[in-house]
Parts: sequence; structure tokens; C-alpha cells
Amino acid sequence: MVVLRSYVAGSWRDPDGEGTPLPDAVTGEEVARFSAAGIDRAAALEHGRRTGGPALRELTFHQRASLLKALGSYLREHRDELYALSARAGATRADARFDVDGGIGVLLAYASKAKRELPNETVLVEGEVEPLAKGGGFVGQHLCTPLRGVAIQINAFNFPVWGPLEKLAPAFVAGMPSLIKPAGQTAYLTARLVELIVESGLLPEGTVQLLCGEAGDLLDHVTEQDLVAFTGSAGTAQRLRTHPALVGRSVRFNAEADSLNCSILGPDAVPGTGEFGLYVDQLVTEMTMKTGQKCTAIRRALVPGELMDEVAGAVRERLAGITVGDPADPAVTMGPLVGLDQREEVRRSLKALLDAGRLVFGDPETVPVVGADAERGAFLSPILLRADDPWRAEPHEVEAFGPVSTLLPYRDAAEVVELAARGRGSLAGSVVTADPDFAREVVLGTAPWHGRLLVLNGEDAGESTGHGSALPALVHGGPGRAGGGEELGGIRGVVHHMQRTAVQSGPAMMTALTGRWVPGTDRTVTDAHPFRKHLEDLRVGDTAVGGPRTVTLDDVEHFAEFTGDTFYAHMDDESARANPFFGGRVAHGYLVVSFAAGLFVDPEPGPVLANYGLENLRFLTPVYPGDELTVTLTAKQISPREGAGHGEVRWDTDVTNQDGASVAKYDVLTLVAKRPSA
Amino acid sequence: MVVLRSYVAGSWRDPDGEGTPLPDAVTGEEVARFSAAGIDRAAALEHGRRTGGPALRELTFHQRASLLKALGSYLREHRDELYALSARAGATRADARFDVDGGIGVLLAYASKAKRELPNETVLVEGEVEPLAKGGGFVGQHLCTPLRGVAIQINAFNFPVWGPLEKLAPAFVAGMPSLIKPAGQTAYLTARLVELIVESGLLPEGTVQLLCGEAGDLLDHVTEQDLVAFTGSAGTAQRLRTHPALVGRSVRFNAEADSLNCSILGPDAVPGTGEFGLYVDQLVTEMTMKTGQKCTAIRRALVPGELMDEVAGAVRERLAGITVGDPADPAVTMGPLVGLDQREEVRRSLKALLDAGRLVFGDPETVPVVGADAERGAFLSPILLRADDPWRAEPHEVEAFGPVSTLLPYRDAAEVVELAARGRGSLAGSVVTADPDFAREVVLGTAPWHGRLLVLNGEDAGESTGHGSALPALVHGGPGRAGGGEELGGIRGVVHHMQRTAVQSGPAMMTALTGRWVPGTDRTVTDAHPFRKHLEDLRVGDTAVGGPRTVTLDDVEHFAEFTGDTFYAHMDDESARANPFFGGRVAHGYLVVSFAAGLFVDPEPGPVLANYGLENLRFLTPVYPGDELTVTLTAKQISPREGAGHGEVRWDTDVTNQDGASVAKYDVLTLVAKRPSA
Repeated sequence: MVVLRSYVAGSWRDPDGEGTPLPDAVTGEEVARFSAAGIDRAAALEHGRRTGGPALRELTFHQRASLLKALGSYLREHRDELYALSARAGATRADARFDVDGGIGVLLAYASKAKRELPNETVLVEGEVEPLAKGGGFVGQHLCTPLRGVAIQINAFNFPVWGPLEKLAPAFVAGMPSLIKPAGQTAYLTARLVELIVESGLLPEGTVQLLCGEAGDLLDHVTEQDLVAFTGSAGTAQRLRTHPALVGRSVRFNAEADSLNCSILGPDAVPGTGEFGLYVDQLVTEMTMKTGQKCTAIRRALVPGELMDEVAGAVRERLAGITVGDPADPAVTMGPLVGLDQREEVRRSLKALLDAGRLVFGDPETVPVVGADAERGAFLSPILLRADDPWRAEPHEVEAFGPVSTLLPYRDAAEVVELAARGRGSLAGSVVTADPDFAREVVLGTAPWHGRLLVLNGEDAGESTGHGSALPALVHGGPGRAGGGEELGGIRGVVHHMQRTAVQSGPAMMTALTGRWVPGTDRTVTDAHPFRKHLEDLRVGDTAVGGPRTVTLDDVEHFAEFTGDTFYAHMDDESARANPFFGGRVAHGYLVVSFAAGLFVDPEPGPVLANYGLENLRFLTPVYPGDELTVTLTAKQISPREGAGHGEVRWDTDVTNQDGASVAKYDVLTLVAKRPSA
Repeated sequence: MVVLRSYVAGSWRDPDGEGTPLPDAVTGEEVARFSAAGIDRAAALEHGRRTGGPALRELTFHQRASLLKALGSYLREHRDELYALSARAGATRADARFDVDGGIGVLLAYASKAKRELPNETVLVEGEVEPLAKGGGFVGQHLCTPLRGVAIQINAFNFPVWGPLEKLAPAFVAGMPSLIKPAGQTAYLTARLVELIVESGLLPEGTVQLLCGEAGDLLDHVTEQDLVAFTGSAGTAQRLRTHPALVGRSVRFNAEADSLNCSILGPDAVPGTGEFGLYVDQLVTEMTMKTGQKCTAIRRALVPGELMDEVAGAVRERLAGITVGDPADPAVTMGPLVGLDQREEVRRSLKALLDAGRLVFGDPETVPVVGADAERGAFLSPILLRADDPWRAEPHEVEAFGPVSTLLPYRDAAEVVELAARGRGSLAGSVVTADPDFAREVVLGTAPWHGRLLVLNGEDAGESTGHGSALPALVHGGPGRAGGGEELGGIRGVVHHMQRTAVQSGPAMMTALTGRWVPGTDRTVTDAHPFRKHLEDLRVGDTAVGGPRTVTLDDVEHFAEFTGDTFYAHMDDESARANPFFGGRVAHGYLVVSFAAGLFVDPEPGPVLANYGLENLRFLTPVYPGDELTVTLTAKQISPREGAGHGEVRWDTDVTNQDGASVAKYDVLTLVAKRPSA
């Protein structure tokens, strides 16, 4: 008898007592036992807050990303072990890959996004500087700092690997330690996952803990700086959301609950079209993958009324080819449900659904089984139902969390939008159509009820990840029945773990607070050109001033001839005057920025390696022949790159005319070398 | 006897029954009566959903902004009436301006932000297109669409004008109708405000309703698409948050509760410095403005231990100059509390605070009163307390919602960060210091506990809006005790009223769904150059292709000489080779974009009026002498401007070399004329 251990407060702990047996989904044999009796939950939270949090907050976003990437690689090396264990939970190899590789994929995606989209810093400066007063002496800036508590992650049984990892990745990048609480049925998988994480030695102690058992008094110990991220049933979500400690301390609570997701067949997608086939294939995949135990699976198949029979026929035919049995057998295409209790629950839901519809395929009571004992495993046939009155309540309200979908007819786009909304909030929906007008009406009509919507057709079928796949770059969660939450979504999911604070001050103080040069702050002009400084020696505010240089009519004409840009506003005084924005011939904007570069550049070899881009360029005042240009280039943001010999420097660039008016403002982006010794 | 009416379902309704009397804060006389007995709350919600919502969703963000701007101007013309009524609630003229002008300011700020930062469309396309597959055939894009329900806005008594307007503005811009429920004490002000709004005739029917009375069964009728925005006490927030209908339907609930905000005096700000004076002035202002009835007011004044006596003395001296009395009297600098009940509540809190501290200024029981009957009005002296043990619980936990603050000593930055956190979450905090190191330590240390932080010193004092002012551009709300919510924050506050949906499709379908050209979508190349098309005739995907043009070494040298940009990588083959990114001399990036303009431009006068900017320019591949450049310019986004003869067109620009590799990518921003007839 193996009782799963918890990893809390720095070590593996055995629970008191014997625990609850966790049966193998295929054989009914005991895989392990599950209990967290006697585990000190308050101490676990305190360990996260005092050890994990501070360790993480020492690291920059990029350093945290590097650790996640290394962890992803480590887990990839050990994934076979997780696949094997997944079979005991009823998962075929494809199901196991979806869970295991999917989870590893989230780690790698967050590692990559954090490096690309976040600064190599410990605080996130969000959005632009907000001018708060006309004189420029008072500005605002939003900062996001990691919450100082623990991200309590309560996971569902159906994704024992992906679930914890998709919650861990954004929390970790944000700088918040995680406490993982798996669901019982498949907790042995999550326990092995956390063992692997601990064995890897990659993540700082206290940043990942495992409470492998019942929640107990866990939530009684939350504080304002903790958060709770929950995946599971709507009923449990409601219970947790109203927990007195969460309510009393305004603890952030995010719920992701399974929902009655729909897939809509477009009227154009008649039999014989590629889209018809895509619809049928996707529906069968969503019904059978993970034996339908996906919170994003299709429960409501909405099809044009006149195509009901044909869709029913095509799906029935495909379902007949599904082989149910031991998922370790390569011939098997659908494993059992996670357990006998789950099967009983699905059968109960089926009873309610059968009040509103009838069976098209499958028998709720029996199914041929390959390679396993049909009496011992939680096997169930895929079940397709059909409800010819789409306004009956049950198909929109009763979720059978297994390989079960209901076909429902609709008349037109307006009606299908209304029917979709009867799910009262969904994680995911799909529309299979090649008709952009139908797609637009349905997407915009159903968007308020959905966290994610897939439009599937010949254009994207080859690369689409399908209706049911939550992706790290996209938000996962939905309104209403789906829990009203939001996870993932790239950096959005990171920010969920941070407190957004509006900071107000003068510009120079803001520069000191954020490390970014804010206009209005004094500039540092020295004899040495800032292009002579290595990254470590450069300071925000270091400035080069170049000019003045007069722009002549000859310059304009010469530039026009040289580049071929003979736009009338540069060449023809009369036409230029007729333009609503110009009082006569004007210099090219590209001439202005080219001259500006000539004025600010320091040409000899040195630490500045390249100008790799330009951002937010605005031409603010026309430049007329005879105008004198001066350029002021000020180091605005200095971003060392981890493990490279250089970093990025962003320069605030202001080109002014003889009256001191800005004619162009922009950011010049350069790569600057670190000191050779570094 | 005037019983306040509700404005619901398209008309003004009198309640059943007599209602509760609302007394004048100064005289105790009845101002009006308050009741919503018999008002059909379900019908009000349904009217918002069926009439207000659809009317708003017909309008673009810019059109909604124009209506808000017009409303702001209209209310400004009628503000004297609101000022006069404010005096009956105890507000001095300055207090009334803070509430009334502040509220109008939010309308105008949102009008302006929406026009600048949102598209002239009905759907918000958020963030970048996310590539979801390597081949480019599957992409994601987040869309935000307005919730289809009603924004139920439950306001506090202390801002009867600003409160409703700061909630209305972002909801209205988002496309969501509002139902305003004022607090009783000052409901006559909100009622008059809504009368003015209705009288203006500016906003579509159903977009603003008023439930002028108790909530009753209002929340029993919410659906998944409604939201509740609450301002008031933490206790009421908890009760509402756990309302079964809200929990059962995952209704968005935002709470903004008053909190024990702190103001920290820096150790550098010793007597004699400007900052010492600023600290004392600000503390007195926050204590007395609106008679301390501000949820952002300073309750905890944290000062270096050695300065306690001096701060106490300076504040006492300033408080002695405060004149309490009838706010309509210009000599009066602080009016009464909103009512006698409120005064009783403050006195009760004071008792608890006095357990941990002692009085420095003021008498809780009596105060000299100017121009009013001290027996009838809710007058209270400003009260400064001092607690020499800063770790006593009461000052951090007991809020006296009146002109009351407590001085607390601290030793160093680390201790003051911990003491600030003992408020368990605040709306606003301030640090008065000229020392950037102290400011940085305190701001970053206290940020996780704050929604807003002000750093005040000589730099920003002249323009600072002060500790207590919530601003439309900055988030308002805070963690923990402050309710855990977030309002305002510019466009963030708009997005709170929308559902974010991740949409997945192929690029061409995404172009059709969003109206923005997504790379991978077919381009439309016609004989007519797209610069020949007026705004209405242009379509996303319209494309001009220019080139090829060979870049010669002569071109590079000539450009260097002409512009003065003789950076070594362009001029010196040996040095260029030593650069880690180049294999030899390269063309200037500015030369590439200048040549590209020469290749794509159509020079004759026509609808394209100006190139006003450039965004997201990245140089991706070095251009070597002999390379051939081709430019492809594709209309990506077309944004007609309301009430102008032109709009903005953003062009996707891709400069490629002879191998088809992109050497530079960027967006060119142009102004394009509408048809002359338009």
C-alpha cells in the first residue's frame, strides 16, 4: 500500500492514517492511497510566503523563464514514466500526450513569452507614462509587483499534469510560489510530477509545494496576498468562492469550471464539403479524447435542421470505428472513464438528457471492451444523442462529463447565437464554416458568452489545434457557468498573480522608481558621447545632442531624386499648399530621421553594435526648407540580456526645429555591448 | 414632503409609501424622502438589457465618447445647482467642486481617452495577433465585446455625483447600460444628477437608470452578463459578494471599500524642509476635506519616531485654524458629517482608537460651530490621535470615517513597509520624501498592498492632485480590506465591462472577423495604386508593390555623406566584419526605409494626405551593397475619424531582399481623405 506523500515546508511528509484508495481506471486495482491527514497546511502556506516567495522575487522575469525552460526540458526527458502512469488513469497514449506534452508545452511557451514580452527586471512597468498635469511636473505609471502570498492551485482530476503546470507557469514567472492540490482520482500522477520537479533541483525551494490530499483547513489560513486558482465543478467553485476567509480578505479567486460547450456547423458546410468532414471529425475527437472528460469538450452539436440526419449518420459511422478498452493496448482508441463513480455520474446525467432527446449511437449500459475486464474498468460507450426541439432545457444545462454529445438543430445565424447563449457561459466554442459573413455574425454574437472561439475550415484545418485545446497564448476560462475566470492568455496570466499599483510622482522621481527615463527628468550631457559607454556604464538620462543643421530646399529635392520619393508635398509648392496640413513644400519625414541619425551618431567602432529598430515615430510639426534641426537622444531604458554579451538600449529621440518645437519624436532601439571582461 | 423618484424602464416612478426622511446635515431638516418600494427592479434590468444595451452597441467607441463629452459640458452648465444641493449634505464649496467637477472631469477624461486610445469601432481588438502554428495558417486574436447585461452601480453616500459618474463613464464607453443605486443619505444629489442627464436628452434611453431606494430584490434578478460595481463598506461588500445569484451565475463583482490608508513622512523631510510642510498640509487637507469622509483619506500618519513631536505640533497648529460650521458660509473650512448617525459611528470608532493612543487635537464631544445650530447639525471637531506603540492593532484596523487620523512612529524603511502592510490592503498611500532611495524602497515594498501610491515632494507639489484624489487615468481600488477591486485606470476600466474572447482561425478568416489585415491573408494588387483611393473605397488587403531596386555601395556612401551618418558599419569593411551581427559593410536602416518610401509612394496629389508616423520598425536582415529591395505595402487598418474629412490608414510594410527575406518590417501611418462629397 503506497500512501502518496505531500511535499510541504521543504520535505516530503507522510500523512497520518491510511488514506482513501485510488483505483486503477482499467482494472479497479489500487494504485495508491490519498490523504493529507495531519499535514500542517498553515505551515505550508507560511513556507511559501517566507521561503519560496522571497527566492522568486530575487530573480528577474528572464531568470525565472530560464528555470521554467530547464524544467520543461527535464520533464520531457522523464515523460515516458508519466505516460505509463497515465494509462492507469484511463488515458490512451494520445490522451497522455495531450496532458503531459501539453503541460510541458505551457512551461516552454511561458519561458519564451516571458523573455520576449517582459523586461529582464523584477517589476513590470505596465503601459505608458500618464501625464497627470499640464505642466508635465506630475505623472502616473502603473507598476505590477508579485503578490506576497502563495498561489493555491486546486486542480481537477482530468489533467493531472497539464493542470498543475498551466497554473504553475504564469505564477512562477510572476514571482509567486505555488501550492498544488490535486484531485484524488489521479493524484498519483501529480505526485510523480512534483517528485520530478523536486528531483530536478531546478526550482528554488518553497516555490512548488504539494498538498496531496483533502484541502482540510487550507483556506482558513489564506491572507489578502494569497490567491486561489480553481479548476473543477461549478458547485465546488461556488462553495470555495464563498469561503469566509476568502470573502473576508478579498482573496483573488479564479474559477475554471466545465461548461456546455457548443460546436456550430455552418449552413455552407453541407455534406461533400471539406468543412462537413472537419465538423464530424472534430466532434468525434472531442467526444472520445480523454473519454470526453475535458471541460472544453463539445456537449452541444448545433447543426442546421436540414442537416441533422446527415450529421447523425456521419458521426454514428465514425463512432462505430472507436475501439474501447485498455488504453495500454495500441488498438484501443478510447480508454475507460477515470473511475466507476464517474461512470455512475455520467449515467445519471444521461438519464436527464434522454428526457429531451434520443440515442443516435451507443448504449449507456454496455460496450464491447478490448484487452480488459469490462466488469472492473470504468468503460462506457461513446454516446451521441439527438434532441429535435433545441429549446428544451436539458441539453443546455445537464453536463454528462464523459464521451457524450447531443445534436441540436437550428434555423439561422440569429437562432444559433441564441441557442449558444443558453449554455449560460462556456469555455470554448467552435464554428465550422468557410463563410466569413456567417462566421462574423456567430463569433460576434456568441463572444460575450465565450472565453474562446475557434473558426474551423479548410484554411486552418491543417494547423488548427482543435476545439478543445486551451493554449498558453490565449485566455482560458469563460463567463457564467464556466466560472467567470481567466487563466493563461500569455502575459495576462502572469499579471493575474501581481498587484497593479498606480504610482504618482514628478518625472525625475518616476525615473528613479522605474529605472526608465521619463520626459521631464534632467538629461545628463557629458563630453563623452553615450555611444562610447558599455552597457554597464550607461545610465538612463545619458544624452547626446546633435545639430543644428539647416534643411535646405536642395536637400529636399536631392533626397527626393535619390530615393525616388517625389510625393507632391515635397516637390510642388502649389499642391503642397492645397494640402490641409502643410503651408507649402515640406521635407520628407524620412529625410528628417535620416538627418537626425547623422546628427546623433558617433561613428567609430564602440559598444553600440546596431540600431535594430524604431518605435512610436510621430511627425509632429512639418519641416520647411530653411528650418534648423536639432536632435536630442537620451538613454531611456537599459535592458541587459541574460547570458549574452550585449543588451538592448532604448533611446528617447526628440528632433526639434529652430523654435524649439518637436518635429519628430520616437524611440531608437539599439544593441549595446557589455564590457569585454563581463 | 418630496419623495425621490426612480427612473426605470423609460420613465420616472414614484415609490409606494412614504419613504425614509433624509435630513439636512447642517440643520437636521428633511431634504427629501427615500424609497424604492414597489419599483419593479426586474423590469429595470430587462429594460437596460433590451433597450439601453442594444442602443449603445449600435454606436462606436468614438460615438459613445462624443455623447459623454456633450454630457460633461451639459452638466458643467448646471453645476451651480449641484453645488447648492451639496451644502445640504455638509459639503463646503471646495468639497462640492471635488465631487461635482471631479465627476464631470471623469466624463471628459473618458471621452478623450476613448477617442485617442480606442478604435472608431464597436469591438475592441486587444493585443497582437498570436501565431499559433509554425506554418502561419492558424492564428489567435483576443476580442473584447461589451457584456450584454446591465452594470449595476451601488454607490456610497460620500460622492453622490462623482461616484455615479466615475462608474457610468467606463461602462458607457464599453457599451454597457448603467443602473445607478445611490446611498440614502445624499440620494437627493444623485437623483438631481440623473434628472439632469435625462433632461439633457443626450444619452440613448435605457443607458442610464436610477433606482432611488433600497436594493430590495434587485440582485436576485442578475444574470451572467450583468455586473455589480460596489463602493461602500467592507461589510456590505462581503454580503453582496456572497449573494446567491451573484455566486450562482459567476457575476462579476467589483468592490471598492474604504481602507486605512497611510501617509509616510520620509526621514529626510525634517522640519524646515519643503517636504515637512507638504506632509503637514496634505495631512490636514485629507483630514478635513469632505470632513474626512473619503475612502482614500489618510487614517495612519507614519512618521520617523524622532519627528513625532514636531509633526504633532505642526498639525495641531494647522488644525486650530480650521473653522467648522455651515458649509454655505464662506468662512467655514469644514462642514458637518453627513448626519448624526455617521457622527455616532465615528465617535464609537474613536473610543476604540483611544485605547491605543491619545488625543493630540480636538474633542470628540464638542466643537465651536459657525453659522449653524451645533445641536442640530452633525458637527465634529477634527481629531488627531497619537499612538506611540505603532504595533497596537487598533490604528491599523479601526476606521473612523470622519476627520480623524492617528500619528504613528516608525524606525526605518523596512519597518514602515511592514507597518503600512498592517492596513491589510489600501486604496491609496503616500510617501513624502525627496530621497529617491527611500521612495523606491517604500514604493516597491508597499505596492503589493496598494492600488495607488503618491510620492510627494518639491518636484511635483505644484501640480500634484494629492493623496486622496482618484484619477480617471489611474486604477482606483486596492487589495484586501480595500475590496480587492479595480475601477477606472483609463481603458482598463472600459475593458472591465467587456468579455475577452480568444478567437482562433486562419489569417484570412481573422481578417474578415476583425477588419484588420492579418499577415498570411491574400493581398489585393490592382492596377490602381491604393494611394488613389479615398478612405471609403480603400479595403484592407489593398496592396502596392514597389521595386526591385539595387542598393549600391555608392548609395551607401552617398547617403552617409549626405546625412552625416558615417557609422563604421556602413563605412569600414574591416570594422563592420568585426561586428557580431554583420558580415561586412551594410546599408543604413534609414536608407532602406527611405528607398522603400521611394518605391511605394504614388507622388501625385490624391487622397493620401500625409505620413504622420511609423510603428514597430524592426530591421531583420542586414542589407549589403548589391542587395535588391522590394517593398510590399498593404492596407492593414482603416479608421474613419468622426466628423473629420479624413481618417487614419495603417499600412503593413515589408521590405524584402532578392532572396525573399524580410529586411525590415513596420507599419506606416497615413492620413487619407474621405470622398469630397462625404
